[in-house]
Amino acid sequence: MTVERQKIILETPLEGAPRTDNFKVVDEKLPDLQDGEFLVKHQFIALDPYHRLAIGGRHQSVDGPLAKDAAPDSGTVGQIIASRNTAFPEGASVFHQGGWQSHSISDGTETRILKETDIPMTAYLGCLGMPGLTAYASIVKLADVQAGQTVLVSAASGPVGATLGQIAIQLGAKSVGIAGSDEKCTYVVDTLGFESCVNYKHEDYLETLKDKLPGGADIYHDNVGGQMLLDAFQALREYGTVVLCGLISQYNDPSKAINIPPGLIMMRRATVKGLIVYDFNDDYDEYLELAVPWVREGKMKLKEDIVEGLENLPGHFVKLMAGENFGKTIVAL
Amino acid sequence: MTVERQKIILETPLEGAPRTDNFKVVDEKLPDLQDGEFLVKHQFIALDPYHRLAIGGRHQSVDGPLAKDAAPDSGTVGQIIASRNTAFPEGASVFHQGGWQSHSISDGTETRILKETDIPMTAYLGCLGMPGLTAYASIVKLADVQAGQTVLVSAASGPVGATLGQIAIQLGAKSVGIAGSDEKCTYVVDTLGFESCVNYKHEDYLETLKDKLPGGADIYHDNVGGQMLLDAFQALREYGTVVLCGLISQYNDPSKAINIPPGLIMMRRATVKGLIVYDFNDDYDEYLELAVPWVREGKMKLKEDIVEGLENLPGHFVKLMAGENFGKTIVAL
Repeated sequence: MTVERQKIILETPLEGAPRTDNFKVVDEKLPDLQDGEFLVKHQFIALDPYHRLAIGGRHQSVDGPLAKDAAPDSGTVGQIIASRNTAFPEGASVFHQGGWQSHSISDGTETRILKETDIPMTAYLGCLGMPGLTAYASIVKLADVQAGQTVLVSAASGPVGATLGQIAIQLGAKSVGIAGSDEKCTYVVDTLGFESCVNYKHEDYLETLKDKLPGGADIYHDNVGGQMLLDAFQALREYGTVVLCGLISQYNDPSKAINIPPGLIMMRRATVKGLIVYDFNDDYDEYLELAVPWVREGKMKLKEDIVEGLENLPGHFVKLMAGENFGKTIVAL
Repeated sequence: MTVERQKIILETPLEGAPRTDNFKVVDEKLPDLQDGEFLVKHQFIALDPYHRLAIGGRHQSVDGPLAKDAAPDSGTVGQIIASRNTAFPEGASVFHQGGWQSHSISDGTETRILKETDIPMTAYLGCLGMPGLTAYASIVKLADVQAGQTVLVSAASGPVGATLGQIAIQLGAKSVGIAGSDEKCTYVVDTLGFESCVNYKHEDYLETLKDKLPGGADIYHDNVGGQMLLDAFQALREYGTVVLCGLISQYNDPSKAINIPPGLIMMRRATVKGLIVYDFNDDYDEYLELAVPWVREGKMKLKEDIVEGLENLPGHFVKLMAGENFGKTIVAL
């Protein structure tokens, strides 16, 4: 069987915020399957902010900048359409790192067959996927959230923030969000059950945030870095915990990095922890055991921001990196 | 009884590193004792780097810059020479915050009678005093050191660093120091029992440090801030703990502050904690119970850098703030 695949490659190196003309779609013939391999036709591709780093060679998941003619890596869900691996039979739905392309060949490495038919497959790109595991690692494994605590989350309508806030709520804590529009804030409170959410684009957002957190947050999960991270120390209680997870404010432009004054950590008596999600791969099954029922019962939700067609992937990624997405950014094929 | 006291006050505001001509000695008549008060004649005055901050109003122990005609606050040991407080009788030796002066009047607030006569009183300004409690709070309360761990300490021959390294050793851990001269390093290893000590003034110090810590340090206690703090992340194991306790590198000049890139904490998966010693006042008795026997049995030592005479205090403080002291900086009267 000869299969052609479409994939996205770089037309020009990224500088600063990505533009659609940095990318192009190319066709290529796939090689024949070897013993142990199978061919996956992608149905959904996840877009994540870390892809911006990975393309530039600035992420721990890659050894260097994206090779010419290679598609960026990313999570995908799809269906096996040909197989020479009995553990991964034709017809099975799988979740793996298939990349920005229409098809991929896998030998089963880090590939999971999706057995639950009563859950939307796209959940495995969001609250049940890498963003979900990130949220779980942060709030349970690193911050050790306890019932009755208050958790502050930036990028609260995004996949990590939304999932984290909902995990905290399920475990008996209260969640307070920070997001970039009133619409996102309304969603976070009304649909996800956060206690409140503050739009950081409002001038007095920090004062509002402090008002919403009279005793200070016990835990702050940071996806953003920059001034918002520094601000959050003001909304944290003494001896509170900050988990550093993402630095989206500086992914497009590392020169925009804002570093943390050590005196700020001291004066707040804070505990600051660094999170790399790959360290928690062994906790993924434990997380799914907890979270799949929540999704099934409607206790965990995640809005999705889906466009159709691989040719629209670059535009959707540009939107994500401009902070204009709302929910988990996904491309449907 | 009319008593004159000598005290040190500011002649000119401090700018950058202190100079002896910033200070002057003045005499003043002490008021009569009120009911509940007692008069202490100081025998020893502790000098600490935080005094530089407090004088400038940049320390949590003060509400603003040092008042004109006021002596800076500091720990002192002395003898009660007159008393209208039965709990603090004439003749008793006491440790309290008497300040840069020959006498002080106390009402007993945060004043401790020193009962152990077989321990040098100056120990209460060093390993059994505020520096000792700082070390204990850091390594036991915040870092939760365990037997078998390796602890890295900056300013290792200073009162906090030396005490912390020795507490760790007593609790079954290994200590590795960083200090500013070969002489200090030899003392730290030969006299205090650290496993090794690296002189940060040697060009290849960071490589040497990494060689001394093949698996990385479990805990780094930072008194210094600046580039040394950033360097220490390279000598820390993944998931290691950093306790931020002092920023002596920037006390003379806040514009020299170096902040911590959040990505450094993330990539090292570090836990960074801020320490303010005043939060641990309630743990002081618990600490003394542990440490007094160590001092008595010679298991905890602390070199002292003593000058005689209040008039020599400013010069001794200048030396401390230039990093030229060796051991606990004390003025004997």
